[in-house]
Amino acid sequence: MITLGEHFRTIWLNADDPTLVETIDQRRLPHEFELFPIRSVEDGAYAIREMVVRGAPLIGGTAAWTMYLAIATEHGDARHALANAAETLAASRPTAVNLRWAIERMLAVAATTDDADLVARLRQEAEAVCDEDVLISQRIGQHGRELIAGIARQKAGKPVNVLTHCNAGALATINWGTATAPIYFAHQAGIPVHVWVDETRPRSQGTQLTAWELAESGVPHTVIVDNAGGHLMQHGQVDLCLVGTDRTTRSGDVANKIGTYLKALAAHDNGVPFYVALPSTTIDWTIDDGVRDIPIEERDPAEVTHIRGALGDKVVEVNTVPSESAISNYAFDVTPARLVTGLITEAGICTASSEGLATLFPDRVIDTRS
Amino acid sequence: MITLGEHFRTIWLNADDPTLVETIDQRRLPHEFELFPIRSVEDGAYAIREMVVRGAPLIGGTAAWTMYLAIATEHGDARHALANAAETLAASRPTAVNLRWAIERMLAVAATTDDADLVARLRQEAEAVCDEDVLISQRIGQHGRELIAGIARQKAGKPVNVLTHCNAGALATINWGTATAPIYFAHQAGIPVHVWVDETRPRSQGTQLTAWELAESGVPHTVIVDNAGGHLMQHGQVDLCLVGTDRTTRSGDVANKIGTYLKALAAHDNGVPFYVALPSTTIDWTIDDGVRDIPIEERDPAEVTHIRGALGDKVVEVNTVPSESAISNYAFDVTPARLVTGLITEAGICTASSEGLATLFPDRVIDTRS
Repeated sequence: MITLGEHFRTIWLNADDPTLVETIDQRRLPHEFELFPIRSVEDGAYAIREMVVRGAPLIGGTAAWTMYLAIATEHGDARHALANAAETLAASRPTAVNLRWAIERMLAVAATTDDADLVARLRQEAEAVCDEDVLISQRIGQHGRELIAGIARQKAGKPVNVLTHCNAGALATINWGTATAPIYFAHQAGIPVHVWVDETRPRSQGTQLTAWELAESGVPHTVIVDNAGGHLMQHGQVDLCLVGTDRTTRSGDVANKIGTYLKALAAHDNGVPFYVALPSTTIDWTIDDGVRDIPIEERDPAEVTHIRGALGDKVVEVNTVPSESAISNYAFDVTPARLVTGLITEAGICTASSEGLATLFPDRVIDTRS
Repeated sequence: MITLGEHFRTIWLNADDPTLVETIDQRRLPHEFELFPIRSVEDGAYAIREMVVRGAPLIGGTAAWTMYLAIATEHGDARHALANAAETLAASRPTAVNLRWAIERMLAVAATTDDADLVARLRQEAEAVCDEDVLISQRIGQHGRELIAGIARQKAGKPVNVLTHCNAGALATINWGTATAPIYFAHQAGIPVHVWVDETRPRSQGTQLTAWELAESGVPHTVIVDNAGGHLMQHGQVDLCLVGTDRTTRSGDVANKIGTYLKALAAHDNGVPFYVALPSTTIDWTIDDGVRDIPIEERDPAEVTHIRGALGDKVVEVNTVPSESAISNYAFDVTPARLVTGLITEAGICTASSEGLATLFPDRVIDTRS
């Protein structure tokens, strides 16, 4: 985030207490800014499951720090504790592919480390996971800034209107975000940019997190309901759609917050470029067809029926649905690659296809095919 | 509505007081069931503007009864009072075409009526507007029931899953609804039917009104956020989309609650039939291109930022958006005819095209072309 600065992090090890990891409790934003302490594997799994933290990269960072805590707070069998932590964490959110990625990375490092060095080495690795994520966001920001700059050149000084869904922002990563990184980098470079912020029901990450981030960072933006984007695109008010993804198939299908698919359809119908920003850690090289093969998490119906907001100076949750009605709450949908104009990764921009991904990640594609 | 029975009405003249029109205050549902009294032109315009009543047919009925009240409560210049009432009412909601239709119908009747008979004649005409609307809903229900029955025959006893957006229900009409009439008629005929109810932000007419109606009427249904429909259609969980419309062009474009266009795109992408139910009074025979020519109402940003719900035994409004963010609130969008499988009218079902409408309403099409 711009105002919170270069050194802002969404998760960090407490400087005085090496058994305490701290993160922002995102369930309380934008009404309250509070830290959430993670002191155990249970705390880390709770933070991921209950969405104290969310966003694929931050989930990865949280998993990495929690794997470290499993060792730092364990005085018995460290290897056993690590295996248990891996299992508990992996079950906390089924869709996020880089939750598994972070767990496996920590396990791989542990496997080649002596017991005596384990705490120091896993701490170093968790820090590396986070530092690398910041670098990835910065690179996505640089590549995406050029994309926005290209559109800006055709707009004769008028702002580039970017529509985003959910929060693939600084709060979803360690800093800068994925979908928001190009926006922050463009804004910092003096390119006029305006963001349409989808509310993103049921959890309203757009109004609760993205709008908060953009406001804190001084980026012009307008909050809209999820239903509005199609109308805006029909009337030429969107120049670019830019979203994140929780899991990307090797053919370029993207699983992102429920409703993303609808915006991609509207973009396609109106000739609006639709880009997805992602760290390559969200690519699942083992699957092709996202609609068929990505399991879609169903979450608590209370996310649909209960809405949090300010009532005077209190923050409360109100119930908006009559109790007789059944509720369904799928958290993600899959946007097929055919609707995605391009993928913005740390390695550059490519088409949403196995050919496109092969140009940026030739080693991974070869790995998969072998 | 089924449980409230054959004689249920959403608006009526008080049996004891011919200067009092009563309607249900739809802003308070589903948490509270309260009547709203209309005693003057100002009350009627307020009810329409502030969405005490909503839905194209009920807006028409309310306008008709308010035109009657303008005379029934006026002891000065009746003609002048009628002209003023027409002007005030016409300005209350810009998109609903049959608001204008109802006003003009009442003015036309008044123009051929002697002063002495004016009150009785306009009362009779307002009653006729409402009775005819019930008949129209019943006919839409009968035509649409056959459509659902046809799908049911292919489902081997499994329920027909209908997705609807907003409330084109009994509450939007005088009784039975437009989009819901086929559902009620199918349910009454013993055809298994299940309804996916879009929440319909910002005003949540789906959760607040449609879910309430369906629950009261014993129709199985599930509430979903507006973002969910595309995912459900990708996975074969929707057999039919069925929505209403506030204005239909002579070429079959439909203006309905914001977000309808997104569902039509998803239906088209997944081969799901997308039908729009409408009384022919919502057809605007003067325009062709809905995206270009239908003015889209922008409403109060507070509809986006403030959400009403139950907090314990109280009903409160909470603020969900940080105050620094701009808000945009378009109320409708236009679904082009190419995405609409068919129109269900009181005269039958036709394709969404000028040719289709000509088969059902040959006189109107000729009128327009002359």
